[in-house]
Amino acid sequence: MENKRSMILISNDDGYQAKGINALAAMLRPVADIVVCAPDGPRSGFSCAFSAELPLRLTLRKKEEGLEVWSCNGTPVDCVKMALDNLVDRRPDMVVGGINHGDNSSVNVHYSGTMGIVLEGCMKNIPSVAFSLCDFSADADFEPMRPLVVSIVRRVLDEGLPRGACLNVNFPLLEERGEKKSYKGVRVCRMAHGQWVNETVRCHHKRGYDYWWMVGNYEPEEPEAEDTDRWALDHGYVAITPTQIDVTHYGVMQTLEKWDFVTGKRKP
Amino acid sequence: MENKRSMILISNDDGYQAKGINALAAMLRPVADIVVCAPDGPRSGFSCAFSAELPLRLTLRKKEEGLEVWSCNGTPVDCVKMALDNLVDRRPDMVVGGINHGDNSSVNVHYSGTMGIVLEGCMKNIPSVAFSLCDFSADADFEPMRPLVVSIVRRVLDEGLPRGACLNVNFPLLEERGEKKSYKGVRVCRMAHGQWVNETVRCHHKRGYDYWWMVGNYEPEEPEAEDTDRWALDHGYVAITPTQIDVTHYGVMQTLEKWDFVTGKRKP
Repeated sequence: MENKRSMILISNDDGYQAKGINALAAMLRPVADIVVCAPDGPRSGFSCAFSAELPLRLTLRKKEEGLEVWSCNGTPVDCVKMALDNLVDRRPDMVVGGINHGDNSSVNVHYSGTMGIVLEGCMKNIPSVAFSLCDFSADADFEPMRPLVVSIVRRVLDEGLPRGACLNVNFPLLEERGEKKSYKGVRVCRMAHGQWVNETVRCHHKRGYDYWWMVGNYEPEEPEAEDTDRWALDHGYVAITPTQIDVTHYGVMQTLEKWDFVTGKRKP
Repeated sequence: MENKRSMILISNDDGYQAKGINALAAMLRPVADIVVCAPDGPRSGFSCAFSAELPLRLTLRKKEEGLEVWSCNGTPVDCVKMALDNLVDRRPDMVVGGINHGDNSSVNVHYSGTMGIVLEGCMKNIPSVAFSLCDFSADADFEPMRPLVVSIVRRVLDEGLPRGACLNVNFPLLEERGEKKSYKGVRVCRMAHGQWVNETVRCHHKRGYDYWWMVGNYEPEEPEAEDTDRWALDHGYVAITPTQIDVTHYGVMQTLEKWDFVTGKRKP
């Protein structure tokens, strides 16, 4: 019987030319056959958006033994859907998102196109992992992440993940520790509570109208909580946050059962 | 002391001209002052996307006593952020999304721009509720929803919602019951498991290239589960699904704690 190599589908939200996705593909080529299908340009902040009204196209950018790179004019989620339907001859063993230029911790998970990719993979019941680095620069150094990225991917290939669960893995910047730079360790975390504030900045156009850019500052709500992803990153640890598809707030269901929605009164 | 009227911020993903958002604003005018800030055209499937790279503009479309309508060239989430930062002089008492033309049950919650709106409101700690109707037609009849929409909004204005929780309310089509049409009742639900399949359709352009449209069929994974939103809608009930911001999969954290990510081995 043929002993097929594993196959991993990779995408991102920074575009197929970004340094992070190319670093990721290079790290994982020894582990599996790689199919990259990524946006043709930056799509940061695209969340789980898909293109309901845009005709989508695919362009082959590179084809080598064990590596195919495609670009798509759609969103990160479009890339996953398009690849699964049209680019692979079998179900990939994993979907991997990243490596994102910038972290996807706390509420950023809701806006992140990188997380959109792995939520999409997870919704298709494929083990899915997102990798992000706390460095927005185009020339960020992803190399120190390699051993852990490879180890996590091998582990998930071997053991899978529970249905409905994917991983959101964020790396801090390396810090000096003794004589060399290293991560302090790996922590399994929950998502930190926090919110973005001052998110718009007003500008004035010469033609007489106002326009705005989206900006903002992250305001932590629980900076001392040691079990959160933000705390881990702030203290030099790699943060692994298991993330779920089922967003039901089960804790609130009982409260709501007591509401009489028809009359607006509380049930006896 | 001045007894101020409540203020409700309304947005949607079908655009400010859609019938659903205008029906919603009309229903809620007796309840509160209304500020509408909605996309200038259709933005279905935009999830929690925001515009990291697009300059945003606002256009005033209508101003009456107790009602302002603005359009924005961005995403549904942009509309909420822009309105909170630039259109209101105080914190709205609620954020309401919809009424969406088409349901947002099961995994659709992840793609839905309507849910993006209420997740955004919820992340800003404002009680937030999304309303959707299982009817995609532009001329859908929203009038039968009125009593329940008003009752739910009044209830949430009075009592608030727990921090980190918002409501996803989906209405079925009315069915004949005895001599008149009605809903069978209201059910508090969890999100159904299911997935989209056959999501892309290939077309051929006269110029010699292929392109694809996003389509797809929803495949339920648990059609008999009576506690889900899909079951409720399929059986004529209004489905209220409490939805949460914290997407941590707490159940998987213990499993992951046993992994030694550095060596890839299981911890002793």
